[in-house]
Amino acid sequence: MGTWSERRLIEKIRQASQVTAEGLLTAIGDDCCEVTANGSWLISTDTLVDRVHFDRSFHPPHLLGRKTIAVNLSDIAAMGARPRFVQLSLCLPENLDWGWISSYLDGVFEILREYDTVLVGGDTVKGRDLVVSVTVFGEPTTKGAIYRSGAKEGDTVWVSGPIGSAGCGLALLVHEKNHPGKLDLSTFQNLLDAHLNPVPCIDLGIGLAQSEMLTAMQDISDGLATDLAHICQASGVSAHIDADRLPYLPELKTAAMVLGLNRQDLMLRAGEDYQLVFTVAQGREQAFSCFTEKYEWELTRIGTIHSGEGVFLQKEGGIEEITFQGYEH
Amino acid sequence: MGTWSERRLIEKIRQASQVTAEGLLTAIGDDCCEVTANGSWLISTDTLVDRVHFDRSFHPPHLLGRKTIAVNLSDIAAMGARPRFVQLSLCLPENLDWGWISSYLDGVFEILREYDTVLVGGDTVKGRDLVVSVTVFGEPTTKGAIYRSGAKEGDTVWVSGPIGSAGCGLALLVHEKNHPGKLDLSTFQNLLDAHLNPVPCIDLGIGLAQSEMLTAMQDISDGLATDLAHICQASGVSAHIDADRLPYLPELKTAAMVLGLNRQDLMLRAGEDYQLVFTVAQGREQAFSCFTEKYEWELTRIGTIHSGEGVFLQKEGGIEEITFQGYEH
Repeated sequence: MGTWSERRLIEKIRQASQVTAEGLLTAIGDDCCEVTANGSWLISTDTLVDRVHFDRSFHPPHLLGRKTIAVNLSDIAAMGARPRFVQLSLCLPENLDWGWISSYLDGVFEILREYDTVLVGGDTVKGRDLVVSVTVFGEPTTKGAIYRSGAKEGDTVWVSGPIGSAGCGLALLVHEKNHPGKLDLSTFQNLLDAHLNPVPCIDLGIGLAQSEMLTAMQDISDGLATDLAHICQASGVSAHIDADRLPYLPELKTAAMVLGLNRQDLMLRAGEDYQLVFTVAQGREQAFSCFTEKYEWELTRIGTIHSGEGVFLQKEGGIEEITFQGYEH
Repeated sequence: MGTWSERRLIEKIRQASQVTAEGLLTAIGDDCCEVTANGSWLISTDTLVDRVHFDRSFHPPHLLGRKTIAVNLSDIAAMGARPRFVQLSLCLPENLDWGWISSYLDGVFEILREYDTVLVGGDTVKGRDLVVSVTVFGEPTTKGAIYRSGAKEGDTVWVSGPIGSAGCGLALLVHEKNHPGKLDLSTFQNLLDAHLNPVPCIDLGIGLAQSEMLTAMQDISDGLATDLAHICQASGVSAHIDADRLPYLPELKTAAMVLGLNRQDLMLRAGEDYQLVFTVAQGREQAFSCFTEKYEWELTRIGTIHSGEGVFLQKEGGIEEITFQGYEH
């Protein structure tokens, strides 16, 4: 396939890019793109660096393409909003194989199509390291966006699905890289997928916003301890979570044991699960449970909001503060 | 000053960031920022890489901070629009000096203030190379944005100021780096400034849009030959430009001679001048000249639009095609 050229890359991007979409006035091909909004825009940027945020030796390019978009869409999900447009900036090493880039872009466009989101511009440059920077634009629903800052004493804390999966999946992949063939990874596919191909909770986030019972929300990118601490900090409250209620995939237990890792640490600290953590207004728990019945969501109530500050873990034998124990990327 | 930490960096960015501005609903501190638009948004992304797009050995950090924003604002100027918000993504080497970053950010915030533009988010990550990616959001005036695609046969071609300055300034700085003290750079300050501290033509772009006489516009980032070719390609026309009319600073002649460079090549190919190149509708030249009289603009009419395709240079002895002779970054 040979190495890449800027011309070849831009040609592929142009061909794969949708040129018409609701609200898209000018697509790729001018100094700027032009879009219209009905109300407000939510905007977020995430940058991923080779060997810091991903490992090309075991991350298939097609899934990496999906993931670089997914982690950005997740920021829109965390506001209870709908993603609409993205800008993609690629810094690529000169000797990168065209087959790799082509497959990477196929992953990018595949996930964009799945979430009805359109690539409207970006930049491609050469550099020593592979660096991908994505800026995503989303629109809140008519119910407005959900912020981090609305949690109040007495609210309940929830997560949208199992946590610790992505961190454990990464640990398995690193183990396999360093000790090839020593583990049978086939039984841990869900954990590997959680790291390699995370799913942004777009429909769930929008559904939760429409319940009008949430007071705060954020996605779990840096680990539950750190991300819930962001909600507490922004809201001026503390959170108590119940160790026994934290949801996880059954294979997490086996995998953590095989790897000699602490399962609870993975769940609280490893991050990158891209589940949502949110708070439901005091007194609305029952109405919320009724509201969610019509969906196939796997929501778990894991704790409550208190006055004060910090995130605390309640378990047999007492309570400990676990604020900011996630990764800092 | 020591090296940087993500916490120190984010703290400085938070302190320097404006948290209130017209249309800014949620600033830095949530999963996304939130902004409102009156009509449409113009969006552009530019990524700059150390040793590819700039050289830290002679680019003062404060001016580099200004430039990384300026080149993005220039894309908004090229649409005849007003910049409003930016997202800044910084990929920084671990050993980078805090003094350098601090001064860099001072430059970023200084130029943002000058153009009444607000940093609303971004990302900071570690990597081997310094990579800066900026996404800028602008609003068109009530007259609408100016695209590349409206040029028609009979229109006249104009540039907003001297060209070749930045390319020559860079050549002087590289010469000084390789042969320190051999040249007296003090007489070439304007050329050095053009490379180190380019000025985005925001007010000019807006003024030109308000004339309602332009048919196409773009900024000169890759060189007049390449950037005018973009207009021609998007508009389905060709351009003939007059070599004798191309405007340049008087010191360009001396500097090019000293460096042994071809002055005309610098003007057509070197790029990074961030002047605007635009076309005025046929029959409106006189009205346009009257309109511009009340401003202190230094506009120069350099050619005309024809049918066909390509960019052609007319000079003594004939006409030659010069399409796409700029740098590809």
